[in-house]
Amino acid sequence: MNNKVVTFGEIMLRLMPPNLKRIVQTDAFDVVYGGGEANVAVSLANYGIDTYFITKVPKNAVGQSAINHLRRYGVKTDYIIRGGDRIGIYFLEMGASQRPSSVIYDRAHSAIAKAEMNDFNWEEIFKNDGWFHFTGITPAISDMAAAITLEACKIAKKLGLTISADLNYRKKLWSTEKAGKVMSELMQYVDIAIGNEEDAEKVFGIKAVNTDVNKGALDLSEYKEVSKELVRRFGFKYVAITLRESLSASDNMWSGLLYDGTEYYFSKKYKIHIVDRVGGGDSFAAGIIYGLLSERLPRDVIEFAVAASCLKHTIPGDMNMVNVQEVEDLIKSGGSGRVKR
Amino acid sequence: MNNKVVTFGEIMLRLMPPNLKRIVQTDAFDVVYGGGEANVAVSLANYGIDTYFITKVPKNAVGQSAINHLRRYGVKTDYIIRGGDRIGIYFLEMGASQRPSSVIYDRAHSAIAKAEMNDFNWEEIFKNDGWFHFTGITPAISDMAAAITLEACKIAKKLGLTISADLNYRKKLWSTEKAGKVMSELMQYVDIAIGNEEDAEKVFGIKAVNTDVNKGALDLSEYKEVSKELVRRFGFKYVAITLRESLSASDNMWSGLLYDGTEYYFSKKYKIHIVDRVGGGDSFAAGIIYGLLSERLPRDVIEFAVAASCLKHTIPGDMNMVNVQEVEDLIKSGGSGRVKR
Amino acid sequence: MNNKVVTFGEIMLRLMPPNLKRIVQTDAFDVVYGGGEANVAVSLANYGIDTYFITKVPKNAVGQSAINHLRRYGVKTDYIIRGGDRIGIYFLEMGASQRPSSVIYDRAHSAIAKAEMNDFNWEEIFKNDGWFHFTGITPAISDMAAAITLEACKIAKKLGLTISADLNYRKKLWSTEKAGKVMSELMQYVDIAIGNEEDAEKVFGIKAVNTDVNKGALDLSEYKEVSKELVRRFGFKYVAITLRESLSASDNMWSGLLYDGTEYYFSKKYKIHIVDRVGGGDSFAAGIIYGLLSERLPRDVIEFAVAASCLKHTIPGDMNMVNVQEVEDLIKSGGSGRVKR
Amino acid sequence: MNNKVVTFGEIMLRLMPPNLKRIVQTDAFDVVYGGGEANVAVSLANYGIDTYFITKVPKNAVGQSAINHLRRYGVKTDYIIRGGDRIGIYFLEMGASQRPSSVIYDRAHSAIAKAEMNDFNWEEIFKNDGWFHFTGITPAISDMAAAITLEACKIAKKLGLTISADLNYRKKLWSTEKAGKVMSELMQYVDIAIGNEEDAEKVFGIKAVNTDVNKGALDLSEYKEVSKELVRRFGFKYVAITLRESLSASDNMWSGLLYDGTEYYFSKKYKIHIVDRVGGGDSFAAGIIYGLLSERLPRDVIEFAVAASCLKHTIPGDMNMVNVQEVEDLIKSGGSGRVKR
Amino acid sequence: MNNKVVTFGEIMLRLMPPNLKRIVQTDAFDVVYGGGEANVAVSLANYGIDTYFITKVPKNAVGQSAINHLRRYGVKTDYIIRGGDRIGIYFLEMGASQRPSSVIYDRAHSAIAKAEMNDFNWEEIFKNDGWFHFTGITPAISDMAAAITLEACKIAKKLGLTISADLNYRKKLWSTEKAGKVMSELMQYVDIAIGNEEDAEKVFGIKAVNTDVNKGALDLSEYKEVSKELVRRFGFKYVAITLRESLSASDNMWSGLLYDGTEYYFSKKYKIHIVDRVGGGDSFAAGIIYGLLSERLPRDVIEFAVAASCLKHTIPGDMNMVNVQEVEDLIKSGGSGRVKR
Amino acid sequence: MNNKVVTFGEIMLRLMPPNLKRIVQTDAFDVVYGGGEANVAVSLANYGIDTYFITKVPKNAVGQSAINHLRRYGVKTDYIIRGGDRIGIYFLEMGASQRPSSVIYDRAHSAIAKAEMNDFNWEEIFKNDGWFHFTGITPAISDMAAAITLEACKIAKKLGLTISADLNYRKKLWSTEKAGKVMSELMQYVDIAIGNEEDAEKVFGIKAVNTDVNKGALDLSEYKEVSKELVRRFGFKYVAITLRESLSASDNMWSGLLYDGTEYYFSKKYKIHIVDRVGGGDSFAAGIIYGLLSERLPRDVIEFAVAASCLKHTIPGDMNMVNVQEVEDLIKSGGSGRVKR
Repeated sequence: MNNKVVTFGEIMLRLMPPNLKRIVQTDAFDVVYGGGEANVAVSLANYGIDTYFITKVPKNAVGQSAINHLRRYGVKTDYIIRGGDRIGIYFLEMGASQRPSSVIYDRAHSAIAKAEMNDFNWEEIFKNDGWFHFTGITPAISDMAAAITLEACKIAKKLGLTISADLNYRKKLWSTEKAGKVMSELMQYVDIAIGNEEDAEKVFGIKAVNTDVNKGALDLSEYKEVSKELVRRFGFKYVAITLRESLSASDNMWSGLLYDGTEYYFSKKYKIHIVDRVGGGDSFAAGIIYGLLSERLPRDVIEFAVAASCLKHTIPGDMNMVNVQEVEDLIKSGGSGRVKR
Repeated sequence: MNNKVVTFGEIMLRLMPPNLKRIVQTDAFDVVYGGGEANVAVSLANYGIDTYFITKVPKNAVGQSAINHLRRYGVKTDYIIRGGDRIGIYFLEMGASQRPSSVIYDRAHSAIAKAEMNDFNWEEIFKNDGWFHFTGITPAISDMAAAITLEACKIAKKLGLTISADLNYRKKLWSTEKAGKVMSELMQYVDIAIGNEEDAEKVFGIKAVNTDVNKGALDLSEYKEVSKELVRRFGFKYVAITLRESLSASDNMWSGLLYDGTEYYFSKKYKIHIVDRVGGGDSFAAGIIYGLLSERLPRDVIEFAVAASCLKHTIPGDMNMVNVQEVEDLIKSGGSGRVKR
Repeated sequence: MNNKVVTFGEIMLRLMPPNLKRIVQTDAFDVVYGGGEANVAVSLANYGIDTYFITKVPKNAVGQSAINHLRRYGVKTDYIIRGGDRIGIYFLEMGASQRPSSVIYDRAHSAIAKAEMNDFNWEEIFKNDGWFHFTGITPAISDMAAAITLEACKIAKKLGLTISADLNYRKKLWSTEKAGKVMSELMQYVDIAIGNEEDAEKVFGIKAVNTDVNKGALDLSEYKEVSKELVRRFGFKYVAITLRESLSASDNMWSGLLYDGTEYYFSKKYKIHIVDRVGGGDSFAAGIIYGLLSERLPRDVIEFAVAASCLKHTIPGDMNMVNVQEVEDLIKSGGSGRVKR
Repeated sequence: MNNKVVTFGEIMLRLMPPNLKRIVQTDAFDVVYGGGEANVAVSLANYGIDTYFITKVPKNAVGQSAINHLRRYGVKTDYIIRGGDRIGIYFLEMGASQRPSSVIYDRAHSAIAKAEMNDFNWEEIFKNDGWFHFTGITPAISDMAAAITLEACKIAKKLGLTISADLNYRKKLWSTEKAGKVMSELMQYVDIAIGNEEDAEKVFGIKAVNTDVNKGALDLSEYKEVSKELVRRFGFKYVAITLRESLSASDNMWSGLLYDGTEYYFSKKYKIHIVDRVGGGDSFAAGIIYGLLSERLPRDVIEFAVAASCLKHTIPGDMNMVNVQEVEDLIKSGGSGRVKR
Repeated sequence: MNNKVVTFGEIMLRLMPPNLKRIVQTDAFDVVYGGGEANVAVSLANYGIDTYFITKVPKNAVGQSAINHLRRYGVKTDYIIRGGDRIGIYFLEMGASQRPSSVIYDRAHSAIAKAEMNDFNWEEIFKNDGWFHFTGITPAISDMAAAITLEACKIAKKLGLTISADLNYRKKLWSTEKAGKVMSELMQYVDIAIGNEEDAEKVFGIKAVNTDVNKGALDLSEYKEVSKELVRRFGFKYVAITLRESLSASDNMWSGLLYDGTEYYFSKKYKIHIVDRVGGGDSFAAGIIYGLLSERLPRDVIEFAVAASCLKHTIPGDMNMVNVQEVEDLIKSGGSGRVKR
Repeated sequence: MNNKVVTFGEIMLRLMPPNLKRIVQTDAFDVVYGGGEANVAVSLANYGIDTYFITKVPKNAVGQSAINHLRRYGVKTDYIIRGGDRIGIYFLEMGASQRPSSVIYDRAHSAIAKAEMNDFNWEEIFKNDGWFHFTGITPAISDMAAAITLEACKIAKKLGLTISADLNYRKKLWSTEKAGKVMSELMQYVDIAIGNEEDAEKVFGIKAVNTDVNKGALDLSEYKEVSKELVRRFGFKYVAITLRESLSASDNMWSGLLYDGTEYYFSKKYKIHIVDRVGGGDSFAAGIIYGLLSERLPRDVIEFAVAASCLKHTIPGDMNMVNVQEVEDLIKSGGSGRVKR
């Protein structure tokens, strides 16, 4: 396997009121660009991986800005298609304490939702093999996006790429029924499945029986069963699950599980004071991919992914701005937070 | 005639990079809400007129913010319908010197574009008569919006309201052919027509023959013919035209013409150093409406409208934030700009 | 009882250094407008209640801005009187951890402090009955303000309105002696008394004996005695008390007690990571009023008020920007803070 | 004469909406501190003069910030008295083009307005002689402030200081009648009188007959008569007058006249594109004082003062932030504005 | 000739107080990265040219940010060397009206100033030929930088690249004597020489005799002689000169001259209201390079370069953010600045 | 001993991305000026001590701004030398939760690092005796800075000043070997030694054996041994040590130890939610100096120093902006954080 990763999906304009204001209070929005697969791409580029992000954005200054955001952080944008009418937008109110963060999507009719099959030349994109990553958001955007994702999986598999998928269920985009159907077909091509503590239930009906994710504590042991069942059904080489225990919008416990079909590896658990939790799962997925690409041991893979995504929660924006050294420093130090000078 | 004005149209979220940055450079957007008819409504509310704005916005925090923006400046929002999927958005790059301001519209599929005929109860809205104002943007949004505008005109006429229309041609919304057809039908109900130096040509093919609006100077006398022809065709009581001479994105000459079917009244001409020219035409329309409502003489009506809209060019945002006293102070002082203290 | 609430008091310009700076460090102030009764009014308007705020503000752009702030959030300002010389101002340094928030008042000589008896036509204001709310700040502003408050209470009572009062003792405005005397007279007209954990002591000398409010923990049971004594003295229908346990300027425990003359209802207790605690008590009062207006059970009233005011602590500014749904979501979820998307 | 200058007056908190917004639009204020005599003091400190500012400000963080603002720019604050209830405030809307800048004063009841005669020990303040400067604003603040100013003049004269006064008429503070009476008495002690193009008329009824200052152009020659009459009446050694021709709020012509009782020295005239014109007159006064203190020739004094105050118009805030070299560079270069690198 | 351009030099961190503040007034700096050759690279990337920037920056987050700034705008950074201690910094005070912009350099000891000959593999960098551009700043940074530039020129010439040089004299970096000596040697390899209205004099003593660049007007015809003499001495194929007439820091006249050894082509002259004039010359150089690369006629080359650099003056930051279409639109429209919507 | 304190060292420009952004994400820096000894000076000036800061900064606007920052907060800058090429700069990324704050120094070649022995006239500076304070950073800057520090110590001792030193080891400036050698010589003149929980080990090899400062908890009792050994070796009158237990970048436990050669005084321990921890140690040193200058009992000295520095952690910037009253209020209240109004 070489060091090239391709991710495919939507990149959106994110608009957030500054300083924890609510949308009705603000007269400015902070601007970043992000989306599940784009966030993974930036994380990986920050680790020195040769990363391509594939999408379609309109031929105007906003579409250009999305591309520039990716280029700025080292992602290759050579295969991004220009066209369509608009870029998806999401409004984010950052929560605090008992006030949850709140997202308003305005992503319908985006260029990528209306992309067509022959917009993308997957044979060209996947040349020289490597790794292909997508999330459950991409096929949920539109039927055509689902079809394109399936096509990409087929060609990737044919060309010998490793394929990873983050289940990433979004209830505003599709029903659990449709998600289950579409994702089940895609999972045939997937080597590594990644999800959060409720994705397996929402997409495939595989439930951690005694756990209510809206309460703080999780029964972590149940996730052994979840991952085992995922492997049983789809034959994944690895299943990786984030285990968020949400104490409040400001404080979370954060850990993860990696299952390689044989052993269950639970990571250290971090208590995080949150700066920006959007993209936490994506940074975890990138950590898993990097860990496997760099041929770390499973125990080290999950520690890397969890430490990396722990750091993401402390960084504004959707994307994780840390390098390998910084992740390893956290693993070593345990997060005591002394000033580096 | 009483002192109540109803305007109908779209209100959009406006996103503008601060400090004259281009969109590709910014990491924040300044936020205001605006739109042709909403801008007229706020101007009139600032003059103490009892003003209602009619539209449809989604039932989320962004839609609420648009309503709050109107309420803040005194517009009554009782008849605004909540529903639909999104609010229209426009991105504005403020220009300077030789760099023109640039607008990217992302307004398709907005709640108002998808509004339905029975969303609005015009009999109720127009009760107690008054004044109805719309612009050429509203019927351009969608066929249904055009149909609703026509219905509103019919009921307004039936109930004895005065009707004004700003031609406001937007080439990104419809062709000159379609505009001509739709607007011609609407004009039957209109008492006062308002336009800029190229609207009559774009919508009805009535051209100021020797004038190229992309050059600085206009041949003002030609606009006598334009307004005369407008009255001839549609029987307007008044035609009011803004006469912008664009020296650069930073400096404009600004004046106006009012024709009452008999006399031509040209206003004083102002040389404006521009802060924000968006909404300049709307503030002129509001000035015409206020001038006529307050039963000023034609000469005073056009001076009021031009002075009011001159001030708009010095105020950030789409909307004119001046009261009657401030407009009259400008007419008296001539704009020497001494500090008021 | 209908759904109309009138509140009466002062609205001030609030000036706060951004980003937790001290006043000596800042070169900008964040601006909002607020005051005890205005904050209650906005909370109630956000719950869909027909709310009027009564005050007097100067006839200049700052006075207008205060009115606009209220209008923006849906409060009716029809009866606000314009006049006087200035609007009250308060400077707020937001504290953090061991550094307490600090307020500098510059509110003397404000328009409302110098308002006169016949500025307000209470018969007109209270027509069609409803609910009247004031706080202990209003009569403390000036002797005339106290006299106007008394007059308002008398007319409200005569016209059959429900009257609520938040004791809200402010030591910089008057002595405990004067407060006790003036407030005792006003209490004769009051149906619902609201206070924090020290107001009853400061205003009426009714002390929670074993509790030092400057220490973290409160002996909650003592507040049964406090509320019982309040009912005994003044015959209130309800007494509602906020129970803040201040761990630091950043972290508080927050709960409340409602006493209906028979039963004591203690709410759930929240541990809050504070964004802005100013207006916490006002949002609680608004929650009590809304709960009673909506004819909830006492247990649900106090849970609503405490959850609502818990959310206030997470929102910048004096005013609570939440709707009924959001409060009820917190009551249901318990505040785990998962992202809403 | 030594190099020490004492100025006496009020320093206010200035609150200005950023980015040319109107007050009703803003949710932040930019903060500086300024006032006629404080502005002169900072200008002089920037020229290396040993400068003291005398006032009274409250003993709170806002009063401290005013002092810190002065110290930051090198003014000595040793004799500033702490006490009183509040600092004066003024709200400034920066104008543009035809929209004039607008000031709302909220300065009544300030610490300095309520200062008492024995707050200031003028014998101590004026020890070692030097120069005393005040403006017409100080005696206008309150009768006591006028009495204190008179006392200061008497002691300054007795101790041999040079005394300069900027007439600085403020119509919101007193009538022309009262100004004339109070200022006439003070003028007996004054050596150098400074004013703008309308002060002499407003305070002493000495009018430039053919000039309307609200129109752009001034008849400069008339100011010879004005200055001659001032010398005739009060026996000043020098009269210095700023000659502002206000084309708009954005563009002014700016020059000055110095009369030494014999010759009239008109400066070069600058066309200024204005950044912030508040404090323009104060920076001119400081230029006159510096020019005379440094024993320049009259022609050079007026060129220095006009160039210095020309630069002030390009600098945000009330105070002129330029050193002697920068003023002299402008005199030499004529203002072609090439980058200094 | 292919479409690949390589530029070599220093990229600096630029720190500028916002809102026209002076450095002593600010508590924040706006951040961009820029430098003569980097600015040319970004301009060209915006025109779709395959552009590489060569430099050395330290291996820390500030060095990374400089690289990211280049990548964001499409410049290839593959050959940038990481190492050294620091990145050069410059502080910029943006001037206005009579106040000139002012630059404080803090660029000594930068990574590129201390770069070594074998840091750069020019054979590799220049493979597949193309175009090489540098400015007079690069050899002025250090003797080694001059030596590296010479080496680059030799290899570029050997490999058949076209070489352009912007004379760009910086008096704070070296004397006119040293500049003349070093640059004369480098000029042997140069095909196209670019300069401003005083570079030829400062570097080679070739003076436009009757022109004082500190005054507004230039005698344009003299620049025919300057360019002719440059060609005579060094045998350039083209000489291009910017002709800035500085009316003030806010307003400039801007035009240019291209000499092809036979004909003199003077461009249209623009009156520019300046937003940010830093990088104006660099955007002109990029326009010349693009014009020649795209094989336009000489007359069109100079119009393109002048229009492009005219637009640069309206854009914040060092770098020109315009595409080919926008430059051509200006050439066509003449800059009337009507809104694009 | 009188009330005058002199501190000597470097003041740097601090550049920090706002809102917890990383450097690669920001397009602005917040600006303050700070440095160990300058921070101590400002703290002391805020306590009303007559404080002088001694350094050398360049003769440009950035150097001037550093001086102005000191003057603003009441430090006397009369003896600061102007000259040299640059001011030291440090970039600060504020950390959060598991992400540590990170500092990039760009301080080489600063004016103070290149200062010369005869830049400073210590006899003059130390006239009228008082107190001299320096930190281990100053001699680490350059050999000459070390020599100047030694000279200052000798003259201070000769003139009878009390001398305090904060060990303040900076590994990026020198090795532990060199630090040990240089500091040991300086310690001969020092009366009061101050350090953090690892300085004694890094500089003198005196280790708290069982403690790993990268882990949260410290074995406080070990610091008795450390301070005892310091007194044994160097004969200090007092040793004061800060005891930081770093739970994360957001949360620290904070206490201190004072040893007077006989007794060990441990302070109350605070759990701090951190706003800005830079300068925490400096504010502690200032607290120790103030406590001893004000002749408090040792127990009160350490409580004052720890409470003062606890407050520093809640204040943006390097410098502690609190007065004596505020520190004493914290000692009394224990930090419950109720609003002061």
